[in-house]
Amino acid sequence: MKKFYIAKSRRLRSTPYTSRIESQGVTAYTTYNHMLLPASFGNLEKEYFHLKEHVQLWDVAAERNIQIKGTDATKLVQLMTCRNLSKAQIGRCYYAPIIDSQGGMLNDPVVLKLDEDKWWLSLADSDIGLYAKGIASGLSLKVDVSEPDVNIMAVQGPKSCKLMEKVLGKKITELKFFGFNYYTFKGNKFLIAQSGWSKQGGYEIYVENRQAGQNLYDELFSAGKEFHIEPGCPNLIERIESALLSAGNDFDNGDNPYECGFDKYIDIESDINYLGKKALIKISKEGINRKLMGVLIDMDKIEVTEGISLYSSNNIIGDLRSATYSPNLKKVVGIAMIKKEYWDKKIPIELKIGDKKSEGMLCDLPIVK
Amino acid sequence: MKKFYIAKSRRLRSTPYTSRIESQGVTAYTTYNHMLLPASFGNLEKEYFHLKEHVQLWDVAAERNIQIKGTDATKLVQLMTCRNLSKAQIGRCYYAPIIDSQGGMLNDPVVLKLDEDKWWLSLADSDIGLYAKGIASGLSLKVDVSEPDVNIMAVQGPKSCKLMEKVLGKKITELKFFGFNYYTFKGNKFLIAQSGWSKQGGYEIYVENRQAGQNLYDELFSAGKEFHIEPGCPNLIERIESALLSAGNDFDNGDNPYECGFDKYIDIESDINYLGKKALIKISKEGINRKLMGVLIDMDKIEVTEGISLYSSNNIIGDLRSATYSPNLKKVVGIAMIKKEYWDKKIPIELKIGDKKSEGMLCDLPIVK
Repeated sequence: MKKFYIAKSRRLRSTPYTSRIESQGVTAYTTYNHMLLPASFGNLEKEYFHLKEHVQLWDVAAERNIQIKGTDATKLVQLMTCRNLSKAQIGRCYYAPIIDSQGGMLNDPVVLKLDEDKWWLSLADSDIGLYAKGIASGLSLKVDVSEPDVNIMAVQGPKSCKLMEKVLGKKITELKFFGFNYYTFKGNKFLIAQSGWSKQGGYEIYVENRQAGQNLYDELFSAGKEFHIEPGCPNLIERIESALLSAGNDFDNGDNPYECGFDKYIDIESDINYLGKKALIKISKEGINRKLMGVLIDMDKIEVTEGISLYSSNNIIGDLRSATYSPNLKKVVGIAMIKKEYWDKKIPIELKIGDKKSEGMLCDLPIVK
Repeated sequence: MKKFYIAKSRRLRSTPYTSRIESQGVTAYTTYNHMLLPASFGNLEKEYFHLKEHVQLWDVAAERNIQIKGTDATKLVQLMTCRNLSKAQIGRCYYAPIIDSQGGMLNDPVVLKLDEDKWWLSLADSDIGLYAKGIASGLSLKVDVSEPDVNIMAVQGPKSCKLMEKVLGKKITELKFFGFNYYTFKGNKFLIAQSGWSKQGGYEIYVENRQAGQNLYDELFSAGKEFHIEPGCPNLIERIESALLSAGNDFDNGDNPYECGFDKYIDIESDINYLGKKALIKISKEGINRKLMGVLIDMDKIEVTEGISLYSSNNIIGDLRSATYSPNLKKVVGIAMIKKEYWDKKIPIELKIGDKKSEGMLCDLPIVK
């Protein structure tokens, strides 16, 4: 595949860690929430195996946080998501699909309840702050919507717990999955959650003080030597195998949360009030005609830059939205939106790129458990 | 400067022209409204001189259009902008700052009135569709907010009129600046505006049929040979000299439209209703303490990836937000937000990068008239 440079500018914001990852060998960026997000340090497969065995530090400041604060904050957060947050607890994270009034997907943030009147939405790539501002203005809600200067770094991989304990003390080992709490390093307080965009275990450190965050970044590398720490970033192979969906790649505004397999995050039964509830009730009654599934294809490389049609006996059965070669499964792994009549996993499928046809099959998500 | 690749994916959408510009030699991309926007064909200065002398065809599909349609469409469009659109005419384009309820800038689209109940907002880089959806939901407006598959190509440069006349006929020469109309090429109708993101004259072709657009793209190149047509893209040098402001670079949500010099697009006198009007009235009464100005610096190169402080006698006077070397003025040209006490253009200013200090001066915008 031909490669192209990224033209940097103030609009594609750098992070507090950019100069560090650039001296550590980052080779490619994507952009995410108007910010640089590292995409590779030069060898995706090597980074994949390293992530599954050791520990990595990721610059994921591009997971921007929208803060919603004020008397009507809880009301506004609930208006945006189909997940029932009425029993949400302070100190917990909630994966919460955000939809529009038609039931179309807008984002899938991790929502943090910081206080009874204060929430953070740790976003995938779309300006949900503008959606929140629009609703708040329309309904004259008593809220303040802002993007605080919070720059997340993630510690990911099986050795992340040991590294975090070494740097931050034993208390961090008591943190439960999707819980968060505050921890101190050299006099600075950090909100840390047990979460992250891999299934290899880890933490996300919500840095509110840039200088303190840079010091912690350096300390994690220094203390992490014995755990073979490396810089890294969300790994395309690992995230597809683990079915960590990517907004804009695997789904967009044309898809509803049922089609994305988010059933357990949808509440149409209780009396909570959110935009798009009527639409979801209708979709639930009628049933869906397509859904996201896993794909395994007999190929040794692929680059997906737009949806690629999948076929069965010359009929289009759906479109492939993310895919990459898995050195683990020795096949291309992917995530595709598949029409209902082809959900039977025994049906052989086909992918055509130029003149080349490749065969494959569908599978459940996640591809690797 | 160290260069980095862009990691392509479905999320950073390709355009109908991507395969064409890649075979024509595009070397760098930026992203804009979740889409690829070409940033260079390898030689910014050569492209600059060519743009000012001949004609270029640009893939600016990333200028995404939000369509607002329905009984309350005009009400919603007006709610989002401080520009008075009450006398807007069908067939005209309007540059219209979009602000939030605090008066902070969100975007600066070109707004097209297509019909009494149908508007397009041709956007800079932020998800204003989400802002519109939020307001519409909050106020229960009768509107449909969507992003139609409109992919703009721009014909820019002093020979653009001759090329357009050759391909589309004499009628196009009657089109006035910021007017639009419909023109036919090989049986397909195109909305074409006399507009574009350069001050060298030109047109923007709003392509609603991908295949027809690709055919027109090819025809423009074929017919354009005699006018020395080249592929191009918004040129950093030309747009800074001409003070075509870039949302996210030159201003962001922390700035208000007065600070950006948008006074003539602000109406606080009439009885129109828009979000942020109260805030703008207050700002207008109090006056602003900083504004965007031009900068000329004695340097032969620069790369701005975040705001760079400008000094006068060791005091910070503002920050430089966009800049590049101008082979025309033989200096670095830039756009900076400058504190009121330093608006006097006779004050020498200083910029420090690492250990190196460079001297310069402030100037009015546009830098080149």
